[in-house]
Amino acid sequence: MPTDIPQGAAERNPAGHDSPFGPLTLPYGVFSTADAPDLRRVGVRLHDRVLDASAAARALGADAEAALLGHPTLNPLLAAGRPAWDLVRDRLTEWLTDDRHHDAIEPFWLPLADVTLHLPFEVADYVDFYASEHHATRVGEIFRPGGAALTPNWKHLPIGYHGRAGSVVVSGTEVVRPFGQRKGPDDPAPVYGPSVRLDYEAEVGFVVGTPTAAGERVGLDAVEDHVFGVCLVNDWSARDIQAWEYVPLGPFLGKSFATSVSPWIVPLQAFSAARVAPPARDVALLPYLDDAKLPEWGLDLRLDVAINGQVVARPPFSRMYWTVAQQLAHLTVNGAVLRTGDLFASGTVSGPGDDQRGCLLESTWNGREPLTLPDGSTRGYLEDGDEVTIRAWAPGPDGGRVDLGAVTGRIAPAAG
Amino acid sequence: MPTDIPQGAAERNPAGHDSPFGPLTLPYGVFSTADAPDLRRVGVRLHDRVLDASAAARALGADAEAALLGHPTLNPLLAAGRPAWDLVRDRLTEWLTDDRHHDAIEPFWLPLADVTLHLPFEVADYVDFYASEHHATRVGEIFRPGGAALTPNWKHLPIGYHGRAGSVVVSGTEVVRPFGQRKGPDDPAPVYGPSVRLDYEAEVGFVVGTPTAAGERVGLDAVEDHVFGVCLVNDWSARDIQAWEYVPLGPFLGKSFATSVSPWIVPLQAFSAARVAPPARDVALLPYLDDAKLPEWGLDLRLDVAINGQVVARPPFSRMYWTVAQQLAHLTVNGAVLRTGDLFASGTVSGPGDDQRGCLLESTWNGREPLTLPDGSTRGYLEDGDEVTIRAWAPGPDGGRVDLGAVTGRIAPAAG
Repeated sequence: MPTDIPQGAAERNPAGHDSPFGPLTLPYGVFSTADAPDLRRVGVRLHDRVLDASAAARALGADAEAALLGHPTLNPLLAAGRPAWDLVRDRLTEWLTDDRHHDAIEPFWLPLADVTLHLPFEVADYVDFYASEHHATRVGEIFRPGGAALTPNWKHLPIGYHGRAGSVVVSGTEVVRPFGQRKGPDDPAPVYGPSVRLDYEAEVGFVVGTPTAAGERVGLDAVEDHVFGVCLVNDWSARDIQAWEYVPLGPFLGKSFATSVSPWIVPLQAFSAARVAPPARDVALLPYLDDAKLPEWGLDLRLDVAINGQVVARPPFSRMYWTVAQQLAHLTVNGAVLRTGDLFASGTVSGPGDDQRGCLLESTWNGREPLTLPDGSTRGYLEDGDEVTIRAWAPGPDGGRVDLGAVTGRIAPAAG
Repeated sequence: MPTDIPQGAAERNPAGHDSPFGPLTLPYGVFSTADAPDLRRVGVRLHDRVLDASAAARALGADAEAALLGHPTLNPLLAAGRPAWDLVRDRLTEWLTDDRHHDAIEPFWLPLADVTLHLPFEVADYVDFYASEHHATRVGEIFRPGGAALTPNWKHLPIGYHGRAGSVVVSGTEVVRPFGQRKGPDDPAPVYGPSVRLDYEAEVGFVVGTPTAAGERVGLDAVEDHVFGVCLVNDWSARDIQAWEYVPLGPFLGKSFATSVSPWIVPLQAFSAARVAPPARDVALLPYLDDAKLPEWGLDLRLDVAINGQVVARPPFSRMYWTVAQQLAHLTVNGAVLRTGDLFASGTVSGPGDDQRGCLLESTWNGREPLTLPDGSTRGYLEDGDEVTIRAWAPGPDGGRVDLGAVTGRIAPAAG
């Protein structure tokens, strides 16, 4: 069971670099400082410092880069497209790793501890997939016992649905326990009150940069043209509200109260060394989803989930059945338009192991088998005051590592 | 059956005014003109003319009104809140009905035929409800034969789900037949191709102006504080794609290719004379949804649906089980934040009569009982080239009428 997971294992750096967010990551975020709380700026993180990116670019005479970075959100950079993304990343890598630029760059660093991080981009549409076979199978066994665990469509298409973009918040934002309706099998009528089955879902999110034209389909080979970067997502879920409301049109209020994202968006290009083959496919895929002969888009992202600092699961993203490329191809196959700022998430990341379950619904079998944490406390579902932190890193080139950092949130009591 | 509906009945004006969009309506839209196609401006429609609203306000010295109206979308006006909405509407009513202002206003009129209408507001989140008992019952009978037509939750909460905000387009935008997966009960595996069951859904949409603070719940008595206005919605649906994909997380690509809205947003206050009692409730409602002792929010909106100019249905919005106030109360009961520009739609409007079915799924019983149009042609589902037009009006004060106008769209062939 998850309780025997060694604490801190995800912190170990296979290349021996102790500080995360080294030069292989260089993620983008949006920050402000205490002396100018309303002035939001794009920052680039290196170890425990944040570069005021547009100010640095201006000082170095890089006017084009400064123009893309000089905004209160990442959206103008996202909209600039792949060639611009690569150019800006190359320039930043040069500025931050070549000693010739050290003195020019130095004035534009701020200690990470001195900045406030904000939602880094304006979310256009938010889509949540359901791409882990292990998660979907367990959920099917729990919610539809006796029937087939996977629905007949599951291995033919990446199931997804739209979530509430306006509920996406940055890591660290308090999550208030939602009110709503629930009805247990023995309740004669639904009851109203704070959710008693509040859960997290450890997910990976993909941020769309380049929009599509009306009717344009994004092929499996074009994911790099549209996806700017990667973040972590906690798709908070009220299982009792969800279970009562979701037939026949899917989750609604059980999800829409809050979705947290990590503050640092890591460019997709940073994961070149983390690309792995996805799991073998059991059924023949239609051509628009068939990735058998294409470059692989599985990603070896290594997640861990902690409750109040105690790791309870280590879900492996490499075991996800549907890849980012397949999700994007499916999302656009009907001509749906992509917009800059669209966010699509993988769905709960779960692996086959008992210690690889990405939500409490699975880890506790809907509360029936409570989890014992290292401090001896038990959880069926989340309690008020609990802080959930999802972290991840991936192998980088030459034995280095790429960090996704963390998305965290604390449960506040329901507000009358 | 729908074919015996008198053509043009919805055009008759009970007060004897032949031209729609009289002074009781005064809706807002966004237009441009051929000589300045990139200059989008807020317009107010009266009969067959459009007022360049901010220019007129400036000329009359109404600087505050001009500031709210002088934008390329309605969003700044939406964000201004109920007192400002009422003030601007009162001023417009005065300017457009009081002869003293005739000469000052006259230079700012444009013929309706000379303007291009655009999406009038930036859509934040789009939610689609399922609020017609008659629609939900027929859909249940079609998709889940032998089972209970309504799911157990249906009369306890207004079922809804999130749609794709980025796919919302203005009336008149071509709707391209979507590609996707479908699988009939006898198909051994899913097939890929253009949808062969393309449908419309006649709906009414509500446009949110005033946002909420985090965690704020909107009570049944506060709908007027948050909802700015009303429009018509066609939630285009590919029934074959939807039927294969929608279990267990709800509709996704079967809906996300296009959702059309009417170009004129009619202020909620215009419908004061159209408020009626909703249908009697069969089950006790939880207090946050119980409207028994509150002012009624049923709305006597009279819709008609035409295919290629031939009316095929006249769905009565007054028969909707769940009201706009209940939908908004439910949407926010979990603390989900409202943003300016949120759009929520009623779901297909259908009444009990055979001629009151708001989609072809119902009218043709999923294609099994094709509809015969007045021109003798038949339809199971929509064909390429078909133009669908949904229109509506409502009783206004003193025997007058309020017009929602029309939302229209023509089906273009699937694009390889």
